[in-house]
Amino acid sequence: MPISNPVITTVAPVPPFAQGLVRDLRVRWALEEASVAYDTELLEHPNIKTDEYRQRQPFGQVPVYRDAAVTLFESGAIVLYIAEQTGTLLPADAGARARAIGWMFAALNSVEPYVQQIATVDVFAADEEWAKLRRPGVVAEIEAKLGEVAAALGDKEYLEGEFTAGDLLMSTVLRIPRHTEILSGFPTLEAYKARCEARPAFERALDAHMAAFD
Amino acid sequence: MPISNPVITTVAPVPPFAQGLVRDLRVRWALEEASVAYDTELLEHPNIKTDEYRQRQPFGQVPVYRDAAVTLFESGAIVLYIAEQTGTLLPADAGARARAIGWMFAALNSVEPYVQQIATVDVFAADEEWAKLRRPGVVAEIEAKLGEVAAALGDKEYLEGEFTAGDLLMSTVLRIPRHTEILSGFPTLEAYKARCEARPAFERALDAHMAAFD
Repeated sequence: MPISNPVITTVAPVPPFAQGLVRDLRVRWALEEASVAYDTELLEHPNIKTDEYRQRQPFGQVPVYRDAAVTLFESGAIVLYIAEQTGTLLPADAGARARAIGWMFAALNSVEPYVQQIATVDVFAADEEWAKLRRPGVVAEIEAKLGEVAAALGDKEYLEGEFTAGDLLMSTVLRIPRHTEILSGFPTLEAYKARCEARPAFERALDAHMAAFD
Repeated sequence: MPISNPVITTVAPVPPFAQGLVRDLRVRWALEEASVAYDTELLEHPNIKTDEYRQRQPFGQVPVYRDAAVTLFESGAIVLYIAEQTGTLLPADAGARARAIGWMFAALNSVEPYVQQIATVDVFAADEEWAKLRRPGVVAEIEAKLGEVAAALGDKEYLEGEFTAGDLLMSTVLRIPRHTEILSGFPTLEAYKARCEARPAFERALDAHMAAFD
């Protein structure tokens, strides 16, 4: 079923640290890969924490996605929905499709929770004593996870053959520690992230994402 | 397509803290909900960190799922695959189905990363100074997330109408802080978790999961 009249919520202003990382980027990218035009509903920053908006997004975050058929939150679920509805970003073969979805969950449940901790200790809790004590452990845990992803990637271009929604999500997770040197310890992952981000659909998505902060 | 000859990897021994939490429980539960019999391949504990096993599970964790058609890791992806293949745990209506999958991602990407931190500070890093300093913040963050989930649940029995794969995953996430009193601050979530766990399929899954540790 094709998608009809998609709209995603976005938020501004956000601090420079978050520009290029807010999760609407993932959904913009998926829509661009599927060549689906979309509208945005821009929320001013404090207005994503209201009870009214939480009716649409329980955690007070962006994006919320809606089209003629559905209203949906969670960037991972939205990307999966777009992939399924438009027949893009997932292999046709059932086994390969399942494994691509496996990488979507891996990105968001096995890698991002660790990677996100570097933002916590370096940005959100930067002045706290525990964060200073904790930081080396966070870096070690991220390096362990990235080493495991690099081993799984091996010398392949993408995690599961062709570019899939799993690569889309994994490469956005790899953007999170961009204020550090962590990724440079994993040259094949750095090249993989660059390969994903060289896709024209990503470039269009990032341009549109960043334009909201001008 | 029905599932043929499913096998999941499990691990033993594990410390008492982890018994009842290891992620094979989620997959056992989904298979029980779908009335699909399965076999297990028990790995002895250090043997999940070998290069051989990482060929099947890059992060050296359980479960890996395989059947006649696919080999797959990530408990969330396996539960989704079982739901799709067997026509259980997801609503038939496209919009409701997408939202149920949204709750799967919410459980694993918006709630579990916070909830899991209480296991980190109380168990894995219990003797470290940063963990003592960090603990109140972890509790506050979990309480914020649980308050948001409770608000979304409201007075409904399940997150999106009928019991879905989203409830299956969310209720397993709510098991993680069982060594604390955190959940008791959210009586509707406590009742929701109990409602999910009263399902005969869960009881069979938990019994089989725990039997591996006898």
